[in-house]
Amino acid sequence: MSSSTLITNIATLVTNDPSLGNGTPLGLVRDAAVVIDGDRIGWTGGTSKAPATDNRVDAGGRTVLPGFVDSHSHLLFAGDRTEEFAARMSGRPYTAGGIRTTVAATRAATDAELEAHLTRYLSEALRQGTTTMETKSGYGLTVADESRALALAARHTDEVTYLGAHVVAPEYADDPAAYVDLVTGEMLDACAPHARWIDVFCERGAFDGDQARAILTAGRARGLHPRVHANQLSYGPGVQLAVELDAAAADHCTHLTDADVDALAHSRTVATLLPGAEFSTRAAWPDARRLLDAGATVALSTDCNPGSSFTSSVPFCVALAVRDMGMTPDEAVWAATAGGAAALRRTDVGRLTPGARADLTLLDAPSHVHLAYRPGVPLVAGVWRRGVRVV
Amino acid sequence: MSSSTLITNIATLVTNDPSLGNGTPLGLVRDAAVVIDGDRIGWTGGTSKAPATDNRVDAGGRTVLPGFVDSHSHLLFAGDRTEEFAARMSGRPYTAGGIRTTVAATRAATDAELEAHLTRYLSEALRQGTTTMETKSGYGLTVADESRALALAARHTDEVTYLGAHVVAPEYADDPAAYVDLVTGEMLDACAPHARWIDVFCERGAFDGDQARAILTAGRARGLHPRVHANQLSYGPGVQLAVELDAAAADHCTHLTDADVDALAHSRTVATLLPGAEFSTRAAWPDARRLLDAGATVALSTDCNPGSSFTSSVPFCVALAVRDMGMTPDEAVWAATAGGAAALRRTDVGRLTPGARADLTLLDAPSHVHLAYRPGVPLVAGVWRRGVRVV
Ligand SMILES: [Zn+2]
Ligand SMILES: [Zn+2]
Repeated sequence: MSSSTLITNIATLVTNDPSLGNGTPLGLVRDAAVVIDGDRIGWTGGTSKAPATDNRVDAGGRTVLPGFVDSHSHLLFAGDRTEEFAARMSGRPYTAGGIRTTVAATRAATDAELEAHLTRYLSEALRQGTTTMETKSGYGLTVADESRALALAARHTDEVTYLGAHVVAPEYADDPAAYVDLVTGEMLDACAPHARWIDVFCERGAFDGDQARAILTAGRARGLHPRVHANQLSYGPGVQLAVELDAAAADHCTHLTDADVDALAHSRTVATLLPGAEFSTRAAWPDARRLLDAGATVALSTDCNPGSSFTSSVPFCVALAVRDMGMTPDEAVWAATAGGAAALRRTDVGRLTPGARADLTLLDAPSHVHLAYRPGVPLVAGVWRRGVRVV
Repeated sequence: MSSSTLITNIATLVTNDPSLGNGTPLGLVRDAAVVIDGDRIGWTGGTSKAPATDNRVDAGGRTVLPGFVDSHSHLLFAGDRTEEFAARMSGRPYTAGGIRTTVAATRAATDAELEAHLTRYLSEALRQGTTTMETKSGYGLTVADESRALALAARHTDEVTYLGAHVVAPEYADDPAAYVDLVTGEMLDACAPHARWIDVFCERGAFDGDQARAILTAGRARGLHPRVHANQLSYGPGVQLAVELDAAAADHCTHLTDADVDALAHSRTVATLLPGAEFSTRAAWPDARRLLDAGATVALSTDCNPGSSFTSSVPFCVALAVRDMGMTPDEAVWAATAGGAAALRRTDVGRLTPGARADLTLLDAPSHVHLAYRPGVPLVAGVWRRGVRVV
């Protein structure tokens, strides 16, 4: 029989239950308590009304919020790209391989090396409060390398995305159509059993709108649900395609027309913003304010990858979103929890309501606003996943 | 008799000894080892040449650098200003007290409360790799409150700064000259025994050039060495005054004329840049590149305070300096270690050379570049202070 635990003396509890609290979607409860029943949330409310439980934890007047839901990362890689980063930041020319460097290192890695890499970054994220993390293939670009990456990922997370269509594999540089055939044929056959999602990098230099539609449609026919790397580097068809196919998320959304914003606002497709990428490439910020004002649902994620955004820190992304993307602290915290859950079409995470998964983060701060107010400071003092304290 | 410890298997060792290594001031040694002898560095060099020691630590192919030297913080305060921050970031009007809020909370705090606050932030910084941290008074603004703050600080750090001239105390709003008399008279008498430095906020709305000169000169006559909050919010006389008085540092340096840059470049006065302040107030960045190209010495610090920069994270400041201030990763890491030491006129910290204090930070990364390449990620895996492992 599973036991129950009361976490009490919580100065600020973020439930993301809009029916609670003070008129914000965060469903804030002050001077609060939470009951964990086995792997689920059993109860939330004011400290004075808390029921009796087997165990008790004193939160010490700090903050509890749902574990972060990071709906966009690329953790199935080997090697790193320190030199490329340093050159870019120093304005020095750098002509080596970019993504091809990572593809070569990933193909050369053993299964054990790839898995060690993956679990290292998942653990690092967990220590920073992330209890649900999506991750993608996309650095293998062969049938064998994509499918082994996804099989490894499936051992560690439910949120696995097939991204054979990250870029055209170097072997197919002269025949991209043949690579699309591979991605929608033999590679899809090998990858579909290990994945929940299919994704495509819809961008000049990667895959155009027609190619992206063919790839996502083929994936959908194999039971994979679409998500799209859309409108990161330039205007393009990605966002409209995501909405057309009812993708769970259009990710990046940096270059949007009014029609793109309108399409997102009138859809179930979440706009996932990834400010780590703009930070580490010195690119212009996506305009979260515009999306929110139009009524779109916004998520925040890390895009953790060795090329353009090598951060695993959701709190860092929250601070950037507030500083540079026009989000209020409340909106950014919602986007990093409930927003991420919406981008994964999950209702069991990203909220602390009775019946939800007991994934909680304890912050060494009196409120969730400190995630933006205290940028860069590792505030996470405890993490529970499925009811078990893991940090 | 103190024992010796060998830290070996260091992928990248930052010594800040320019006679070593590869032509950068960082004095990088690859595949390196360090010997700690008691509280001092005994030896550094290649792993294969390491001498025998009593103990041995395997750095696991990671990075060791000097503990960060944070030469500018304001940790002698009580309360926080979450509401003011959230309002500023959300574009909502906020008319409450600003710095006066903190002054009121600080005066109302007991000694034990103030000290608990101070040690909390010092510990937080230590966990992030900061082994030397300057801190200032400036939220008391009475003889009793300034002197008790400094006496508390002196229990925990050697780098204590008297900043009675932070703003004119509210009681003297109608007679700033009388407040300057207090700061240079009775308050100085009470504070000088506890401090090493005297500082002044030379800015419109605080203290003008003549007042600042009078304050710093009075402090110097009592054995305190000057440092200056200079040219943060607008052009002004602060930097020139700092150079004129051979201040150890001119801090902020956001608005500089060519003459200001030239004065710094031809002086011993360090330009200390505090990007946490620009981050948290959405202000324009100081131009580190311009200062470095002119030949000025640049330090990076947190400015940790509850109003304008509530970060204690030097790694976060390094990432901002690289992204937004034109510093290379090497320059930023130097500025956060050797630069901070120069800003405190210290030669025993900020470097890992034989005889220096054994203050070391171990990063979970193959090189120091990862401090910028992996923004927001808590990479600090170990800290030694005076030869003792404390993290
Ligand atoms: Zn991505
Ligand atoms: Zn300051």
